[in-house]
Amino acid sequence: MDQLELMRDLSIPGQSKIVLLLLDGLGGLPGPNGSTELEAAHTPNLDRLAQEGISGLSTPVAPGITPGSGPGHVAIFGYDPLAWDIGRGVLEALGIDFALGDDDVAARGNFCTVDRPTGVITDRRAGRISSDVGARLVEKLRGISLPGAEALIEPVKEYRFVLVLRGKGLADGLSETDPQRTGVPPLPVEALRPEAGRAAELFNLWLAEARRRLADEHPANSMNLRGMAKVPPIPKMPDIYKMRFAAIATYPMYRGIARLVGMDVLKTGETIEDEIATLRANWEQYDFFFFHVKKTDSNGEDGNFDGKKAVIEHVDELLPEIMALKPDVLLVSGDHSTPWSLKAHSWHELPVLLWGRHNRPDAVRQFGERACMAGGLGHLRHTDLMPLMMAHAERLTKYGA
Amino acid sequence: MDQLELMRDLSIPGQSKIVLLLLDGLGGLPGPNGSTELEAAHTPNLDRLAQEGISGLSTPVAPGITPGSGPGHVAIFGYDPLAWDIGRGVLEALGIDFALGDDDVAARGNFCTVDRPTGVITDRRAGRISSDVGARLVEKLRGISLPGAEALIEPVKEYRFVLVLRGKGLADGLSETDPQRTGVPPLPVEALRPEAGRAAELFNLWLAEARRRLADEHPANSMNLRGMAKVPPIPKMPDIYKMRFAAIATYPMYRGIARLVGMDVLKTGETIEDEIATLRANWEQYDFFFFHVKKTDSNGEDGNFDGKKAVIEHVDELLPEIMALKPDVLLVSGDHSTPWSLKAHSWHELPVLLWGRHNRPDAVRQFGERACMAGGLGHLRHTDLMPLMMAHAERLTKYGA
Repeated sequence: MDQLELMRDLSIPGQSKIVLLLLDGLGGLPGPNGSTELEAAHTPNLDRLAQEGISGLSTPVAPGITPGSGPGHVAIFGYDPLAWDIGRGVLEALGIDFALGDDDVAARGNFCTVDRPTGVITDRRAGRISSDVGARLVEKLRGISLPGAEALIEPVKEYRFVLVLRGKGLADGLSETDPQRTGVPPLPVEALRPEAGRAAELFNLWLAEARRRLADEHPANSMNLRGMAKVPPIPKMPDIYKMRFAAIATYPMYRGIARLVGMDVLKTGETIEDEIATLRANWEQYDFFFFHVKKTDSNGEDGNFDGKKAVIEHVDELLPEIMALKPDVLLVSGDHSTPWSLKAHSWHELPVLLWGRHNRPDAVRQFGERACMAGGLGHLRHTDLMPLMMAHAERLTKYGA
Repeated sequence: MDQLELMRDLSIPGQSKIVLLLLDGLGGLPGPNGSTELEAAHTPNLDRLAQEGISGLSTPVAPGITPGSGPGHVAIFGYDPLAWDIGRGVLEALGIDFALGDDDVAARGNFCTVDRPTGVITDRRAGRISSDVGARLVEKLRGISLPGAEALIEPVKEYRFVLVLRGKGLADGLSETDPQRTGVPPLPVEALRPEAGRAAELFNLWLAEARRRLADEHPANSMNLRGMAKVPPIPKMPDIYKMRFAAIATYPMYRGIARLVGMDVLKTGETIEDEIATLRANWEQYDFFFFHVKKTDSNGEDGNFDGKKAVIEHVDELLPEIMALKPDVLLVSGDHSTPWSLKAHSWHELPVLLWGRHNRPDAVRQFGERACMAGGLGHLRHTDLMPLMMAHAERLTKYGA
């Protein structure tokens, strides 16, 4: 029996409330003074919860594996991240709040430069054209007509766009056109399984017309398509866990992933204060709150140690407002590490703090990576975290007689 | 290769002796003074073994999963508890020392009250009738004749009984009749797979006659059947591990589970002293002793912190008598946690103490949940414990050249 089936069998309704406070990219590495971003941050409220609760370290996908945002989130939501792959095209569409349907195959598009006589790619990102230029080019590509399907295109940022083919019976399982290097021409889209044949044909038809329309542009006179994918038939969290799930996130991609797994996405503002106001306003209506904080990750990606530390301190200052709502269970962690020194997602374990009425306290006195190494939860996988939150919220019945 | 195959391949005969001292429901949660039942108990002997041995924490089924007695025991015996599900009917039969055969389908029965004109259930436990009344009703239900099968019924306690259908070719995979709520009639038994059709038919025939016989009774004028199951074709421990296994337990259910996995069940008395006398008397005849202590769990279920602590202290006082027999390996743990504060089984990890000639000692100086968090064994699964006991008893050969 897999974990989702087990959860579906054992989960029971209840009155308890769970908050998953997810600080994107939370895990870090030592900075100038030897402390990580989290360790260096002044976090009296998190530290108090660490004293009352139980801590540990958790691996999102597998040891050594650096997760993208998709796998990091599906794992903490309890889905095996190696079984439930959310395609790049789907994530890109979710990232611009594009409402994908079941008949849609979404692709990430990159404008590129090709050398006209030879047809070989000379710049895979078309000189990183501005977002304005990208948006103008997308306008030129609207309304390309295809037999029995619709082509929808939206700009993302700079040289990136989303292309969605919408039509009955379209399947994914398609090769990408990007050869991942210059000096060779874009590849044709190929079906990697027989059912994908028609979608391959339509993507190639679209590419031919799109390249014709951009033939006179410079530098963005062609494009590649990557990660063509449909929305996976992922079981929905409310069905598995018998809870009402709400997502509070300021960035579209996280709202999109939450919607994909069946959460209600709440309207909120741009700041963490806005998110807390949204949490408070919706407290009675839901059982489980996915509360996403983005800027820990953004600062990590920028290599900004102090910036990331400041975001953590800001969350800590606001934490009493969350605790004042009296959640039964609070779990604080992240979807992946984004150490300032790597300026990128990383494979490092995430600190985890689990707080509730029924936890065995451990010796941890501070919420930080090294303190968590000695935590009572030991080393977990992200997929363990939903069952643990459920158990502590008394929302799982006994397995077996 | 799964773990049982690996054990079967690698296990070798030997002279060493292993004692698995299982304190049912051992794991706890902090009490009034902040210590768990085990931590609060005065256990100089266990503490000395913890100093000499190596400790850790172990999860019986999976993080967050609260095991019933069946999964907790099969896991510590080395079977994947998610693969080897022992049905409720089988456990109930084992619990009254009913000797189940391969042609038997066992059900747990609950007397209930139905409203005669409408047929809906008004009380799922028939007002919790006394055991005397239950036994009298069971007498009225003996000897119901069925085509090509025998119906055997025995009282359990209060409103509970065991019904066993015995006949060639009967299969399990049957739905329960208990709708789990009042105000609706009992459900018919349905076959959940084609082979179970005949058993479904026989259970329904039995129910019709049984309800006719109880029509004039009050309040127990009907019944529900739950957890219909056959004994699973579980591989036997002596075949896997090449040892002579003995079980010493005061309660029938644990004797039944032990018999199911191929142990010899030794006759013993009611007290832990009786169990130790049985251990001593049979020391030469066996290689592995499963020594079960029940009352840690019973006190946990009653919410009796001091009672559970006292049972642990009593075991500790008697421990030198076990050690005087000079076992080569001793493992002390439980099948699941039963914290006094939850008054029920729980998902929390079990403290584990492994003592033998070849263990690496760790820094643990006391046998307790928090001390075990820092133990040298780290965090294990219950299915890891049999291979560890075998290895420490020098009963496993090398894997691979």
